[in-house]
Amino acid sequence: MQSWRTILQYDGSRFHGWQVQPGLPTVQGALADAIRHVTGESVLPQGSGRTDTGVHALAQVASFALTAAIPPANLLRALNRVLPPAIRVLQMELVDEEFHARHSAIRKTYEYRVFCRHRGEPGSPERICPPFLAPYVYDFRYAFDLDRANRAAAHVTGEHDFTSFAASDPDRATRMAQEGPETRGNVRQIYASGWKTGVDSFLPVYQVTGSGFLHHMVRNLVGTFLDAACGRLDPDEVPRVLRACNRAAAGPTAPARGLFLVEVVY
Amino acid sequence: MQSWRTILQYDGSRFHGWQVQPGLPTVQGALADAIRHVTGESVLPQGSGRTDTGVHALAQVASFALTAAIPPANLLRALNRVLPPAIRVLQMELVDEEFHARHSAIRKTYEYRVFCRHRGEPGSPERICPPFLAPYVYDFRYAFDLDRANRAAAHVTGEHDFTSFAASDPDRATRMAQEGPETRGNVRQIYASGWKTGVDSFLPVYQVTGSGFLHHMVRNLVGTFLDAACGRLDPDEVPRVLRACNRAAAGPTAPARGLFLVEVVY
Repeated sequence: MQSWRTILQYDGSRFHGWQVQPGLPTVQGALADAIRHVTGESVLPQGSGRTDTGVHALAQVASFALTAAIPPANLLRALNRVLPPAIRVLQMELVDEEFHARHSAIRKTYEYRVFCRHRGEPGSPERICPPFLAPYVYDFRYAFDLDRANRAAAHVTGEHDFTSFAASDPDRATRMAQEGPETRGNVRQIYASGWKTGVDSFLPVYQVTGSGFLHHMVRNLVGTFLDAACGRLDPDEVPRVLRACNRAAAGPTAPARGLFLVEVVY
Repeated sequence: MQSWRTILQYDGSRFHGWQVQPGLPTVQGALADAIRHVTGESVLPQGSGRTDTGVHALAQVASFALTAAIPPANLLRALNRVLPPAIRVLQMELVDEEFHARHSAIRKTYEYRVFCRHRGEPGSPERICPPFLAPYVYDFRYAFDLDRANRAAAHVTGEHDFTSFAASDPDRATRMAQEGPETRGNVRQIYASGWKTGVDSFLPVYQVTGSGFLHHMVRNLVGTFLDAACGRLDPDEVPRVLRACNRAAAGPTAPARGLFLVEVVY
């Protein structure tokens, strides 16, 4: 058996999330089908984490083991011929058999992309979100103040209990049975958290790097920072929201379509 | 009754083409649904032309008439609130009742976008088409020579019989019953036809402006120019292909996903 690590890019708007589900197009399912088509072997690739329906990946990492010995470049080309165009294999490499895409991850980076209809100037015409951009951004209808968004975002760096930003997890029992009990609770380390605007000041992007993320955590952080950005929340209230350890204290869950898994570090 | 002209942008990968079809998401159907939802009136908007499944529009024009008197800016906002994000109304204006989006059109511009895996340097690594780009380009696997593509494309400017580039039209009888007999046959005037590369030389774009286009004509032109670009066809054979007046003389039909309706002039 040879152990493989692959880096994948995918358009989450074309799939019902990462995790295989009978009768629905999923990234894990499509990758397993492609591997079986190319090698004849049935494996279930393990991702660095499950992305929800609509969430995209610039560089998701997955691991699996195969009996067949295939040169990496050939396996990459063969998989890309078989996979739907909405998933691309960017890299294939042989790794140590101890490697596991989820358990071995030590740091992850996500991005969240927002389209601003307004930039705070009252009375300025509302911008229309292009249909080609819509599946990849949150079309935000309120005024967006970058300084306020950044003041809010800075409060979550460091080690915190992120219970206020954790979704109730309907699969928690199944997950614990598969993965063993959680030992670290809802405490996570955030190394960087901030907003920037790219080529276009109407397209702010939030980037966050951390030791790990709870279910919906990035989307709940973004929903709260957007409350701060548009004036519904004082940015300096974020420490109080963290201390509450109560989902109801934080803002809404931002939609999946703006979220991109950007990097996983091992 | 008031006559309306609207300019629409849409992502063709999310629809089964322009023309309304029972049980399938179409642009015309979604627009009619939105108009009915906003005004209570049932109309079938007429497009400047029907785009096939997978074909996109940066500025499709449609016309329809309503009894309700609504300020254009209000109708635009109301329709965009109701339409799926894959269709946006960019402009709404009241027009003379003689205006008809198809019959009044005098000139149209299309673009066709190609992703080049290679740029002709033998042995250079093959580029991987990003999943976010895949629904909007033709992922072309052969060498692409811009000069050859442009030599081929230049041959179609002027007035020609484009029978070699016309799809056999299964709806011709229906269409003639609706629109009256064709009086100009397959002769069309092409005002401009050429390739350019944008910010990235791996992304050549073909742009063509003409008096009108036969069914699949742009895609059949592009398929033929790509044959020339990769060396399968001498670019100077295009006049012979035109003179043949035979679909079999031209190249294959390029896929729908690279095609964008860019502008309609009245």
